[in-house]
Amino acid sequence: MTWKSIGIFDSGVGGLTVLRELMQVLPQEDTIYLGDTARVPYGTKSPETVTRYAEEIASFLFRRDIKLLVVACNTASAVALPALKRLLPIPVVGVIEPGARRAVEVTRSGRIGVIGTTGTIRSSAYTRAIKRLKPDAEVLTRACPLFVPLAEEGWTDNQVARLTAETYLKELQLAQVDTLVLGCTHYPLLKPIIGEIMGKEVTLVDSAHETALTVADILSRNSQLRPASEEGNHTNYVTDIPAGFVRIGTRFLGGKLGDVFQVVLDEGEEGL
Amino acid sequence: MTWKSIGIFDSGVGGLTVLRELMQVLPQEDTIYLGDTARVPYGTKSPETVTRYAEEIASFLFRRDIKLLVVACNTASAVALPALKRLLPIPVVGVIEPGARRAVEVTRSGRIGVIGTTGTIRSSAYTRAIKRLKPDAEVLTRACPLFVPLAEEGWTDNQVARLTAETYLKELQLAQVDTLVLGCTHYPLLKPIIGEIMGKEVTLVDSAHETALTVADILSRNSQLRPASEEGNHTNYVTDIPAGFVRIGTRFLGGKLGDVFQVVLDEGEEGL
Repeated sequence: MTWKSIGIFDSGVGGLTVLRELMQVLPQEDTIYLGDTARVPYGTKSPETVTRYAEEIASFLFRRDIKLLVVACNTASAVALPALKRLLPIPVVGVIEPGARRAVEVTRSGRIGVIGTTGTIRSSAYTRAIKRLKPDAEVLTRACPLFVPLAEEGWTDNQVARLTAETYLKELQLAQVDTLVLGCTHYPLLKPIIGEIMGKEVTLVDSAHETALTVADILSRNSQLRPASEEGNHTNYVTDIPAGFVRIGTRFLGGKLGDVFQVVLDEGEEGL
Repeated sequence: MTWKSIGIFDSGVGGLTVLRELMQVLPQEDTIYLGDTARVPYGTKSPETVTRYAEEIASFLFRRDIKLLVVACNTASAVALPALKRLLPIPVVGVIEPGARRAVEVTRSGRIGVIGTTGTIRSSAYTRAIKRLKPDAEVLTRACPLFVPLAEEGWTDNQVARLTAETYLKELQLAQVDTLVLGCTHYPLLKPIIGEIMGKEVTLVDSAHETALTVADILSRNSQLRPASEEGNHTNYVTDIPAGFVRIGTRFLGGKLGDVFQVVLDEGEEGL
């Protein structure tokens, strides 16, 4: 019997934080990751364009015979999840729902902050997901468009990063949220500064771990988990040249990155 | 007799600064502008990917019967100009050469600074263009990846912008350049802060106006200038939905933006 892989994609390298959690929770599973590095970022683009890109990638991964698709990008999860669920006959897991669930579990006051890209915040996807689970929750959101470029520049611990974070987080601080969802896979890189500004009483929620648990749960219920004695193989595709992805990915995954191939996604790839 | 248009493209809205200068220098000319807003930015991507995108756009514009192509994007000018000149049987004008010429004209000490995206700086295109014109020039370069997101966030005059600019420009200041090329179409938006930090003795060069003069010169020599009595029409294409482009473009061009249409560029569009 051959076991199918888990497909996972992001606009770039950020989704590797989700892959890392998946590899810890389910080390026996094969994975195929796609980072759309030629078209990154998604967070500043329209829902229509992000959905088109997500459909192309989902089709590409589905043709590589995956049993489940993880949308490791918050923006794509926020705007394209229904379209991807319609497109694919396999389970599709986004990062919004697991992050919202975790936030609802940890909040005491019911006052929850969410930060993310412009696309994610504008979609209100987190607010809807949180209110579905806890209708009396008070959800305050803030787009932080400079956090991704700051993280990519490696400026995660200097005065510019601090001042930017203070500007973005001021209202959430004043509103005294007790939980803050880091609604973008890049943001955990700024966790120390965000935590320092928000204070120790505020719990920071990052959905990577929760998403991995959701995947494990679905595969287990579908009897599609590989035996734990196996060791997973990991393959990566990128749409721009692999150099930058390999450098950052090796750092993220501590040498367990697997092979990286460049691929051209055709605009015509939407169909299965 | 029908007159052909001038084609012009950029990764996004930044190239409208070049279009604005073109409209001032040659108000009689029709223009077709394409902003690749679905795949912006180019400055962080590989030369191979930027060249592929530039070829797709050049083919798209050429099929709309243009007489000259302006590459209004510094990154695309830096890495894709030779490929575009091979591809098209019409003149192709980039922004690097005009900017370099202007810098060489205005420098007194021969010590010239250049700032731009990672892609532009890594290509060394400005250094080569300046040294071709003035072999004894001393060229100091610095990539400023956060300037584009800062300009797009509208943070062009706050403490974060100031601190970022100070960090990026410190070495150029210490090196006492007397001329600084703003090697990215977004950077003129940060001109006040850059000028303040560099000091009054440093001349800031922005290639938009020089590029427009180069275009006028080529069309004149080719007897392809429309009679000055005419009034040009302006058409714009974007690859993401037009909303953001229309908003910023109207501000840039003071109501003279013209129609804006969304278009899908096929990966197969490279051929003529």
